[in-house]
Parts: sequence; C-alpha cells; structure tokens
Amino acid sequence: MTTPSATQDKPAIDVAQLTAPAGAVEAYMDKVLTDRPLPANLREAAKYALLGGGKRLRPVLIVRSCEAVGGTLEDALPPACAMEMIHCFSLVHDDLPAMDDDDLRRGRPTLHRHTNEAMAILAGDLLTGLAFEVLATRIADPVLANRCVTELALATNDMIAGQVYDTLPDFPPEVRPIEKLRTIHRNKTGALIRASCRLGAILAGCDEKQLAQLTRYGEAVGLMFQVVDDLLDVTQTTEHLGKKAGKDSDAGKLTYPGLIGIDASKREVERLRNESLDALTSLGQAAQPLRDLCEYLAVRTK
Amino acid sequence: MTTPSATQDKPAIDVAQLTAPAGAVEAYMDKVLTDRPLPANLREAAKYALLGGGKRLRPVLIVRSCEAVGGTLEDALPPACAMEMIHCFSLVHDDLPAMDDDDLRRGRPTLHRHTNEAMAILAGDLLTGLAFEVLATRIADPVLANRCVTELALATNDMIAGQVYDTLPDFPPEVRPIEKLRTIHRNKTGALIRASCRLGAILAGCDEKQLAQLTRYGEAVGLMFQVVDDLLDVTQTTEHLGKKAGKDSDAGKLTYPGLIGIDASKREVERLRNESLDALTSLGQAAQPLRDLCEYLAVRTK
Repeated sequence: MTTPSATQDKPAIDVAQLTAPAGAVEAYMDKVLTDRPLPANLREAAKYALLGGGKRLRPVLIVRSCEAVGGTLEDALPPACAMEMIHCFSLVHDDLPAMDDDDLRRGRPTLHRHTNEAMAILAGDLLTGLAFEVLATRIADPVLANRCVTELALATNDMIAGQVYDTLPDFPPEVRPIEKLRTIHRNKTGALIRASCRLGAILAGCDEKQLAQLTRYGEAVGLMFQVVDDLLDVTQTTEHLGKKAGKDSDAGKLTYPGLIGIDASKREVERLRNESLDALTSLGQAAQPLRDLCEYLAVRTK
Repeated sequence: MTTPSATQDKPAIDVAQLTAPAGAVEAYMDKVLTDRPLPANLREAAKYALLGGGKRLRPVLIVRSCEAVGGTLEDALPPACAMEMIHCFSLVHDDLPAMDDDDLRRGRPTLHRHTNEAMAILAGDLLTGLAFEVLATRIADPVLANRCVTELALATNDMIAGQVYDTLPDFPPEVRPIEKLRTIHRNKTGALIRASCRLGAILAGCDEKQLAQLTRYGEAVGLMFQVVDDLLDVTQTTEHLGKKAGKDSDAGKLTYPGLIGIDASKREVERLRNESLDALTSLGQAAQPLRDLCEYLAVRTK
C-alpha cells in the first residue's frame, strides 16, 4: 500500500535513524527485567514477550515527543519502558486461545505457544504491574511520577475497554457502525498512542499549549495508525506482516476498508496525516522526527 | 478447626463490628466502577468480580492499620479499594481454566463461568489497571499517591511471582520443600497483606517506627492467614468454605499440614499469632481492632 501524496517531493525518511531510540529503550527494559527479583521462568516469559522485536512505536513516540519540547532520551526512558510493557501485556492476553487464539506474533510463536497458557496469563499480568512499578520507582520527582501513573492508568483502562468494544461488543442498538468503529479504535489503539505523546511531553516539563498540541497530534496519528492497520490486513500477506493477515475480515470485525472501502480509507489516512502535521506547526525543528514518523506511518507496509 | 489458646480468657470478638469498614469500602468500590466510563458488559463483569462478597480482609486491614496510627476511614478508602481490586483480579485470573479451573468462588459461579473466559481475562486486566487509576487520581497529595502506587505495584508483582512459584514451580534443586512453601506464601498471599498494613499506616502519615511495627504485624498475620488457609483446606467441606475444599492436596501442592502435619501447623499458627500481637505492643488502644483481627484470623473456620 502507498499513499501517493505522502512520498512525493520529500527526501526519503531514514526510518532506522528515526526509530534509533528503540535500542536504548530495549536495553532499559532488559535491565528492568534482569534486576527485578522474579522466578526464572516468569522472567524468561516476560523477556520473551517484551524483547521479541516489534516496531516500538509507542516508546519512539514518547522519546520523540519528549525531545520535541526540550526533554532528553533519559527523561523518556521510564515511561517508554512502562508503555511498551502495557502494549506487550495487551498483545500477550489478546493472543490467548480464549481471545484471538493467535499462534504467531512478530514472526515468532505467541507466548502461550512458546510456554503455556497459565504462564502467558501471569506474564501479561506481571508486565501490567511492572509498568506501574517502573513509573513509581524510577522517576525521581514523585509529583511527575504520579502524573505519569495517572496518564498510563487511564490509557490502559481505556485500551482494555477498547478490547471489549472490539471483541465482545455491547453497543446500544442506535449506535451506527462507523461510530462503533471510531469508539473501538479511539480506545483500543488510540488511547495508548495519545498517552505516549502526552507522557513524552509531560516528562519534558512542557506547558499546557504544547501538551494540547501533542495530544492533538497523538489522537490523529493514533487513528491514522489504525486505519493503515485495517488496510494492511486486507492488502498484505501473513508472511510479510509476521502476524496473521485477513483475520479482521475473517472474524467479521468492523474495519475502515470494510465500512467505507479501500479508497475512502486511503483518503482518511491522508486527512489524518494532514491533521497530525498541522498540530505540530508551531513546534519548529525539534518536532521534525514526529513529522517524519507521521509520514512513515502513513506509508508503512507492515 | 480451633486454636485453643486463642479463645480462652478473652471476651468474644465482635466480627461484624471489627469488619464494619468493609461496607464503606464496598460502597466506594461500587461508586468507582459506576463513575468510570466503560462498556456496560465490562462494568457488569468487574462489579460481579469485585462486589460478590468475600471477607474483605485486606481493605479491613488497611482501614484498621490507618486508624491504629491516627488516620481515618476516609484516608484509607482509595488504597482499600485499590487493594481489593488487585486481590479480586488475582482470584479471577487464578480461577481460569488454564490456571486452577475453578467453577465456584465465594459460593457463586466464578466470573468465567458467569460470563466467558475472554471477559474474565479482560475484567481481571481492568481491575489491575483501575487499582492504579484509583490511587493516582483519588489521593489528593501526589507524593502520598506515588508512595501508595509504589507499595501496591511492588506487592502486586510479588504476588504474581508467588502464583508462578505456586503453580509453575521452577526452584533450583537445592531448595528444601519448607523453603519453597515459605517463598510461595510470602509472595502469593503475604505480599498483599503486608502491603495492606503498610498502606494504611502510610495514609495516616505514620512515622518510620510505626511503619516498621505494622510491617512486622502484617508479615506475621499474612503468613498465619495462609497456614490457617492450608489447615482449612484439609479440615473443612466445600459447602462450608464456599470454594472447593481439598484442592491443594488433590493438586499435590505444598502445604503446611502436608509438610509438617496438622498439629505442628496449629503450633505455627500460635507462634505467628504471638508474633503479630507482640509487634503491636507499643501502639496502645487504637491498635485493638488489629489485635482482635489477629485473634479472629487465628481461629476462623472459613
């Protein structure tokens, strides 16, 4: 899939450089899990879930949002680690037989296939708890730490609500399909992406105007990410994605292409891309990585 | 089961009065779940898990520990609610088919029997996240809130480690059975009970000496609670307990009666009772409910 206007008359985006902070976040996450007293098998399972690749989109958004308003990579490491723990816990539980029953994640066996269901449930639980332990114990300023716990807890619970809206829908009969889909996406993927941009800004000590700008960026990029995801599910192969393709339509799930068609979905991606970039207008050169990330996410193929 | 020395030459304990704060905690928990925007079915599942009875031991310990060092019931409500959410999440996930596969909890169908496995996984996840949302957003002083998040997160993760030690043991071969059992109990039930006593004291603005005293009390009471639990599993019926009796020995699990016998287990209860009471010596009349709770927990039959 390509979004034509997103790639014209611009230098190619150096994705490796753009996502370079992922390496530091992974090293930090590895150290957190290594240092924490845990049963050996639980530690191994948590590391398998947390350190098995992935785009690290949320940590990179946290770091780049932090830098966009004057913060540093070091400021962003605890929330980046905590956010990725929440994201990975949600994947582990979502893959369970009672949920999506997936065998493949990031090109490898899912955690419950690699170990067993009980361990996957418990390792997911642990990653949730550790996310809050990391925020509460590894951010020096307790007032800032509590702001981060607030942001992450609210977003985590909205994300879980989104899983329920998506997999066990219980909407009142008058809600239209497109409204259901927006509710699902805003909660299921939007909440963590929005919170990532906010957390990065908060850790940098941003002002209210900057927080509002990065919130707007995060909301638009988060929805765009999910529309692109819906498109990839119908246009790419399982081998290319490293996870099962076509599973949304197989499961009869609401998707943007399913509801409004592929072409209109691509136009929605373009609209959200412009909205994201517009939110960053006054932020100057320090926000360039966030602009590049947006461009990359609009045209990604996996 | 009775522990003879615990009931002699003392007035009978008024358990209803002792555990009276449970009502206020339940009303508070109900309001938290009612106020939080959630899908209707997820809210119902979370309420089923959280408000379906139970001893409310941990919330009562938080309130009584808070009062023992000069705090109020109102101070203790947010951590009492958060702690019970963590406890109930652990029960919901522990009951799942891939874990203990229990049909009965507190005399009712377990949540996954009442709804389905996917909802039970997600409602458990939600209760975890909500526990931290409650602490971060409902304690006015953010420094105090962050101390509470730290305590609860550490204890939650130790508890999850305890579940792994118990159900998926991976001890080095040189560890003796009694050491394994102590590690299981210290983590699986001890961590939350210890943290309950500490949280109550912290919310009351206690000093370091008081915190150490209540920590010692919590550690002794927590282990005593579990030895009594092990004893009840072999001496009481399923009907009386409201959950399956004899399941520890059926599952070949390590227990105190299994390792050291019923009589020695009862002596251990007595030793831990004395240790708990000893920790409270200098706390005066305000700690009397904690003494009574200890006496009650030593002789409880369910």
